[in-house]
Amino acid sequence: MTDCIFCKIIKGDIPSHKVYEDENCFVFLDIKPNNPGHSLVIPKDHFENIYTTPDETLARMILCAKKVAVAIKNSLDADGINITMNNEEAAGQIIFHTHIHIIPRYKADGFKHFPQKSYGEGEASAVAEKIKSELEN
Amino acid sequence: MTDCIFCKIIKGDIPSHKVYEDENCFVFLDIKPNNPGHSLVIPKDHFENIYTTPDETLARMILCAKKVAVAIKNSLDADGINITMNNEEAAGQIIFHTHIHIIPRYKADGFKHFPQKSYGEGEASAVAEKIKSELEN
Repeated sequence: MTDCIFCKIIKGDIPSHKVYEDENCFVFLDIKPNNPGHSLVIPKDHFENIYTTPDETLARMILCAKKVAVAIKNSLDADGINITMNNEEAAGQIIFHTHIHIIPRYKADGFKHFPQKSYGEGEASAVAEKIKSELEN
Repeated sequence: MTDCIFCKIIKGDIPSHKVYEDENCFVFLDIKPNNPGHSLVIPKDHFENIYTTPDETLARMILCAKKVAVAIKNSLDADGINITMNNEEAAGQIIFHTHIHIIPRYKADGFKHFPQKSYGEGEASAVAEKIKSELEN
């Protein structure tokens, strides 16, 4: 896609710190990392988010993320790794070329995960039924 | 694994709100959701985290997550979806049976993502080189 920053990075029209590339995926450092080494896995073909990424492409992306996650953990002595995909603006997506974040984590980095809620009486069953009904359509 | 809560959920020894199941994966509501409908995709075989999950299993997990993410978005009118995997305690993993979170998001839910940092002069290149060297080993 001609006006997509990530498509331009793949083509080399915008510089990046590439850490890995194969036939299908390109992996480079997020320039505003949560921690140093935070990398993004993107498919070479343009898709907007997980909903519209073809199964084969998505499978290749997650396997690429696994491979690079292990390398990041080992090379940067990370204590853990978060793998995340933000789909749509409300979920924190900023660049609309589907991507997987690989975020090295450390015991003392102090990052806070999203707050947790509780279900009211009968609420969880009702929510599960809604999702199941949608899957059966 | 006999003392794993998620293995017990798959077997039905611990009750859960199941939303989907296929030959390889089981999906159920997180009982402490970030938002209602927050679900977990787990493989039926026990693996600890992304590092040790076989490629075929991991690929099936992410495809299952995609399928259920679309259903959650549609059935619960979510404005976005976060897909996350927390690997190791430092990354927020609590149950050591590998799993993918599917988190419905809403424009006004107010969740904060991890803070962003900047690289110093030459730091990004040095970090990228470390990761690349590890991948070449």
